[in-house]
Amino acid sequence: MKTKKIINDGANAVDEMLEGVLAAHSAKVFALDHSPRSIIARDGPRPGKVGMVIGGGSGHEPSFLGFVGKGLADAAAIGNVFASPPPDPIIECTKAVNNGAGVLYMYGNYAGDVMNFDMAAEMVAMEDIEVRTVLTTDDVASAPADQRDKRRGVAGNVFVFKAAGAACDKMLPIDECERIARKANDRTFTFGVALSPCSLPQTLKPNFTLGEDEMEVGMGIHGEPGISKEKLKPADAITDELMDKILDEMAAPKGDRVAVIVNSLGSTPLMELYIMMRQVKKRLDQAGLALHLSLVGNYCTSLEMAGASITVMHLDAELQEMIDHPCDCAMFRAG
Amino acid sequence: MKTKKIINDGANAVDEMLEGVLAAHSAKVFALDHSPRSIIARDGPRPGKVGMVIGGGSGHEPSFLGFVGKGLADAAAIGNVFASPPPDPIIECTKAVNNGAGVLYMYGNYAGDVMNFDMAAEMVAMEDIEVRTVLTTDDVASAPADQRDKRRGVAGNVFVFKAAGAACDKMLPIDECERIARKANDRTFTFGVALSPCSLPQTLKPNFTLGEDEMEVGMGIHGEPGISKEKLKPADAITDELMDKILDEMAAPKGDRVAVIVNSLGSTPLMELYIMMRQVKKRLDQAGLALHLSLVGNYCTSLEMAGASITVMHLDAELQEMIDHPCDCAMFRAG
Repeated sequence: MKTKKIINDGANAVDEMLEGVLAAHSAKVFALDHSPRSIIARDGPRPGKVGMVIGGGSGHEPSFLGFVGKGLADAAAIGNVFASPPPDPIIECTKAVNNGAGVLYMYGNYAGDVMNFDMAAEMVAMEDIEVRTVLTTDDVASAPADQRDKRRGVAGNVFVFKAAGAACDKMLPIDECERIARKANDRTFTFGVALSPCSLPQTLKPNFTLGEDEMEVGMGIHGEPGISKEKLKPADAITDELMDKILDEMAAPKGDRVAVIVNSLGSTPLMELYIMMRQVKKRLDQAGLALHLSLVGNYCTSLEMAGASITVMHLDAELQEMIDHPCDCAMFRAG
Repeated sequence: MKTKKIINDGANAVDEMLEGVLAAHSAKVFALDHSPRSIIARDGPRPGKVGMVIGGGSGHEPSFLGFVGKGLADAAAIGNVFASPPPDPIIECTKAVNNGAGVLYMYGNYAGDVMNFDMAAEMVAMEDIEVRTVLTTDDVASAPADQRDKRRGVAGNVFVFKAAGAACDKMLPIDECERIARKANDRTFTFGVALSPCSLPQTLKPNFTLGEDEMEVGMGIHGEPGISKEKLKPADAITDELMDKILDEMAAPKGDRVAVIVNSLGSTPLMELYIMMRQVKKRLDQAGLALHLSLVGNYCTSLEMAGASITVMHLDAELQEMIDHPCDCAMFRAG
C-alpha cells in the first residue's frame, strides 16, 4: 500500500518545500540566487564572527533549515531526501557566511555528509577560508561508547548546534567555538525507538517493515537498523529502557543539571511525547539531576515515521549559558 | 489492525500527559492543586486584567494547553480525549484568573463545550464574576457562510485566541476584549483535508476509514464528516481547492494583509506543509494580498491523523497589532 502524501511530483518535493519555506520565512532566511539549496540567515553573519554552516539530507524538518538564524546557524546546505548535499551548496554557504574569522561546519556523522563537507572544506581552503569541522555523534545506539566517533548524529544535533551557534554569536574565536561544539557533542546522548516506517516522496513505499506489535529500538533516522526488535511496551518501560542507557553513559553526578529533548520522529503526537516526558522527569529525579530545559516536539524527524527519541545534554555552567543564549530561527526559538 | 502508541494505560493518557507538561514547562504553567485539569499561567493573571480561559478536549495538542501563558490565555480547562471538560475545571480556572475585570471564555463551537462552559459561567455569576463568551467558528466546511454561528472552531483558534489574548494583556476593558475577539473570529477562515484517521488511546481503533487513494475534504478535527470524499490530488490542486473557498468567503480587497497557518492534523510532516505553503503564497500574490505572518506546523491536531488545514486571517491595523503582540507560552511563541 502506498503512503498518501500531500505533494506534487515527488522529484520536486525538496525544491517546492524550500520555496514554501522562503515564502513563509522571508524575514529570517533567504536562498542564494546562484545556489538555491544554500539557505542563509538574514541576521547572523557579520564582520569578525565565526560563520557556522550546518546541513544534511531533507526529510528531517525542522532539521536542518529550521535552525538557520540569529544565534544559531548562519547557513544550511540542503540535500535531497535522506541524502547529503553535494559540495557546491556547502561551498556557496561557506563563502556567504565567511567574515574572515573562519567557518565551523557542523553536521551528523554520515559517510555521505562527511565526504561532501570535506570536499567543500578543501575547495574553500584554496580561497583561504579556514574551516573547522565538528561532527555530531549523539546516537548511543549506533556504535559502542568506546567508538563514539562511529556514532551517528540525530536529535542531539539541536543542543550541539545551539551551543556552537551561541559561541559563534558571542563572537568567540574559532578555537573556542570548536572547543565548545566538541564539548557539547561529548556531553549529549540520544536514544530512540521506531514504531512504524516512513516513505520517500519519490517511491511512496515504506522504507522498512515492523510487525503489528513490534518496535525497533535504536533505529536511525534514515531507517538504519537498530539494536533490537521488541514487542511494543508501555510508555514507561520504553522510556526506562532509553533512559537506563543514557544515564549510564552520561554518568552525571547528583546535583548536576541537564537539558532534555523528547523528539517525535514524525507522526508520534505530543500526547505520547509528554507521557514519555513524565517518566523522563521521574528518572532524572531519581538520579538527582535537575531539569534545566525541556524541548518536546518535532525537532529531528524522519518524514512521517512513528516513534520518538530522548536526548539528554549534561550541562555545565558554560553549556548552560550557551543553551540559554537567545536565538531566533524560522522553526526554532529559545531565550 | 491496532494503532501502535507510546502510552501506558489508555485511560490515564490525559493525566499522564499533563504530568509531563507540568514537568517540562513548570516555569510557565501550573495545575491547581484542587483541580489538576485546570492549567494556569504563572505569568499572566494580574490585578485589573481581563482573565482569559480557553479549553476543550485533549488530543489536539498543542491546542489548548500550549497556548497558556503571558500574552495569550491565562488558563485552559482540559477535557478527556475529544471530549469537553466538565464545568468544574472551567469554574476553577475562572476563579483562578479572575481579577475583578471580568473573564473571557473562548473555545471552539461544539455542543459539549458550549453546555459545560455555559454551566460554568452560570455558576461563577453567582459569585459575581462577569463572564463573556466568544466561540470560534472558523471552519468553513462545517456550515454555510450564512450560518456562521453553526460552524465549528478549528485551527483558526490560534489566531483568534492570539488576538483576544493580546487585547487582555494590553489591559483593555472587557467590552473591548470581547469586540476584538469577535472581530478576529469573523475575519478568520479555515478549511482542511484529511488523508487518514487517528485512533483514541483507549480503543487504538481508527475513528473512520478512507480508501487507499481517497481524501476527505472538510473533515472535522474529531473525525466529523466533511463535504466530500475525493481521489487524492496533487498538493497544488488540494491547496487551490481550499484557498478558492477561503478567498471567496474572505473577499479581501487587494492590498490588504493576511496571516496564515498551514497546520498539520498530526502526522503530515513539515515537508508537505511547506509544499502547500508555496501554493498558498502564489494564491495570495494572485489575489494581491500581502502575507504578514506564516505559521507552519502542528497547531491544532487530531492525534496522529494525516492531513492539513489552511487558515487565513484577514488583518486590519488593529488585528495586526494584536497578532504581533508578544506572547510566551509553553508550546507557542510570537513577537
